[in-house]
Amino acid sequence: MEQFEFTEHSHRRYNALTGDWVLVSPHRTKRPWQGKVEKPAIEERPKYDEKCYLCPGNERAGGHDNPDYKDVFVFQNDFSALVPDIPEGNYTKGDLFRAESERGFCKVICFSPRHDLTIPEMEVENIKKVVDLWCEQYKEIGSLDYIKHVQIFENKGDIMGCSNPHPHGQIWGQYSVPVEPAKESIKQKEYFDKHGKTLLEDYVADELESGERILVENDHFVALVPFWATWPFETMIVSKRAVSNLTQLTDDERAALADAYKKLTVMYDNLFEVSFPYSAGIHQAPTDGEEHPEWHLHMHFYPPLLRSATVKKFMVGYEMMANAQRDITAEQAAQRLRDLPKVHYKAK
Amino acid sequence: MEQFEFTEHSHRRYNALTGDWVLVSPHRTKRPWQGKVEKPAIEERPKYDEKCYLCPGNERAGGHDNPDYKDVFVFQNDFSALVPDIPEGNYTKGDLFRAESERGFCKVICFSPRHDLTIPEMEVENIKKVVDLWCEQYKEIGSLDYIKHVQIFENKGDIMGCSNPHPHGQIWGQYSVPVEPAKESIKQKEYFDKHGKTLLEDYVADELESGERILVENDHFVALVPFWATWPFETMIVSKRAVSNLTQLTDDERAALADAYKKLTVMYDNLFEVSFPYSAGIHQAPTDGEEHPEWHLHMHFYPPLLRSATVKKFMVGYEMMANAQRDITAEQAAQRLRDLPKVHYKAK
Ligand SMILES: O=P(O)(O)O[C@H]1O[C@H](CO)[C@@H](O)[C@H](O)[C@H]1O
Ligand SMILES: O=P(O)(O)O[C@H]1O[C@H](CO)[C@@H](O)[C@H](O)[C@H]1O
Repeated sequence: MEQFEFTEHSHRRYNALTGDWVLVSPHRTKRPWQGKVEKPAIEERPKYDEKCYLCPGNERAGGHDNPDYKDVFVFQNDFSALVPDIPEGNYTKGDLFRAESERGFCKVICFSPRHDLTIPEMEVENIKKVVDLWCEQYKEIGSLDYIKHVQIFENKGDIMGCSNPHPHGQIWGQYSVPVEPAKESIKQKEYFDKHGKTLLEDYVADELESGERILVENDHFVALVPFWATWPFETMIVSKRAVSNLTQLTDDERAALADAYKKLTVMYDNLFEVSFPYSAGIHQAPTDGEEHPEWHLHMHFYPPLLRSATVKKFMVGYEMMANAQRDITAEQAAQRLRDLPKVHYKAK
Repeated sequence: MEQFEFTEHSHRRYNALTGDWVLVSPHRTKRPWQGKVEKPAIEERPKYDEKCYLCPGNERAGGHDNPDYKDVFVFQNDFSALVPDIPEGNYTKGDLFRAESERGFCKVICFSPRHDLTIPEMEVENIKKVVDLWCEQYKEIGSLDYIKHVQIFENKGDIMGCSNPHPHGQIWGQYSVPVEPAKESIKQKEYFDKHGKTLLEDYVADELESGERILVENDHFVALVPFWATWPFETMIVSKRAVSNLTQLTDDERAALADAYKKLTVMYDNLFEVSFPYSAGIHQAPTDGEEHPEWHLHMHFYPPLLRSATVKKFMVGYEMMANAQRDITAEQAAQRLRDLPKVHYKAK
């Protein structure tokens, strides 16, 4: 019988960070697509849009006015999913019903005053200001006694539920550690206790050695397609040095993170020559006042597109009920991204 | 200070079936929506479509011809993500890289020869034939020695990645137990060992007593919004009797399942007067040859719509990186569904 090959045969891969598995069906890319086709995103935007509630000087919901900001700008979300002032409460009935009140808050970060830009189109020095603000905010929010987890994230593109194309991200702080980082906490702790090093320190070393899934490397950060990637072009930016949170980064390291963020998203835009949608988010140590030497800072990118600017991967039926599933392999995705021109397609 | 209220204050609810949590932000429904609006599904379809690869008598991909079937029809997926004949393989490197080959197969089930129907528009006696076929298939596929899990599911609507509106579902059988049912296995086993009853037996009893989240009840099945529902109008159909898989259902129980399936999906269609998209799937015992008294048969429905026929809930950024999140409470969703007319809006 022939030999088992990643590129030919269905297999499961273990996600060492979460303990979950992903089903890989590499032969399935041959399937024709007769399903939903997305509208391509409208590409031309003005530098300033008088109807945009994130542009400098404009009015937001609830009558707040944005200042005439020049680089980045952070404010409390006018429709926060989490708020600081709620009464404490608990509801328990037997083993089956359990609920608890959850305090927290939600902020919005504008990445630039320019309505028409996105991260891959911004200068690295301006992206660095976004990174600096993340550091500040993580520290400030994390120091509140009722905040034990700070989630920094970005939804890009209307296909990712983003309701405004002005370049921005969000920060939600809360009392509990949410489900996803909690899984990574367990796995990283197990690994650290066993090996005395962080899981991602060893992982990055292995990946750099093989080079197969590496996309971007600079002095302090690496962008790669994880071996266990779920979304077709899922990637991760990881610090080379084992740091557990943003505040531990040196100024050079912050600049290197901005550089990797830009280079990776330029690849993304160049893949289908479209402003590439994704959700991105930073995972780092909980802000519970403990040291977390097992935690290793990283940023995930989960982009939905599969075949073109208009055909996405649907995580539905089988995936929702049973198991995450992907078609092309992580190595094939890495190869495609790596082979793209390094200059943004609009700048050509 | 005021009292904690589910309908006013953010809280987390525990999912007793999976061990995960969901964040509920009931006040957040006030948020205006300026984001993506879906095209409403095209409603008028012919009874027979000569270009549909699922209609009776038509040609499928790869030159197969559909028979002139009269009620239900099952065939092997022409683009199966899982196939039986692959070489066994394993790849392990340290604690960080693990992969294994995965055998299985994928089938498609046509629910009706009529291209224009959907479950809520079908007669209960015809839906019963779908249920009968599920039972047969679970038994047949599950008896293969390399199949330990059988996932029956349905993707409805192009917004759910369904590439053909002809009423149909799928069945994927495979060697490993996938991530989602594996989580439910653990929790159900824990509960059964502690209480000597299935988790869902006790849960259904509690829900029937309060009535708050019940949508449909007949002699043998209940449809309800789970206390821990994640999707805005997520529901679950559960058997009243503790049966671990479809083959244990009596003929009356199968008919009752068909009845609940119809009544629930009629509510769904009536909510926004549109053919309501969802992914649905049956969770039941693994087919590993063991008895599974802890397993209690149920069917999940995960519908994406939130506010209207064209505005869905996006499980993105925060939800992907951190934690599933919902706006309206499970009780509010149940109330809205329960208050709808019982007759399909098109039949009015
Ligand atoms: O098999 P289909 O209908 O072509 O495809 C659909 O269902 C599958 C199983 O949930 C998913 O993997 C696909 O992403 C989705 O588009
Ligand atoms: O906060 P926004 O951009 O209005 O909303 C978007 O991001 C949130 C956080 O990921 C999600 O809960 C919403 O479903 C999504 O539409």
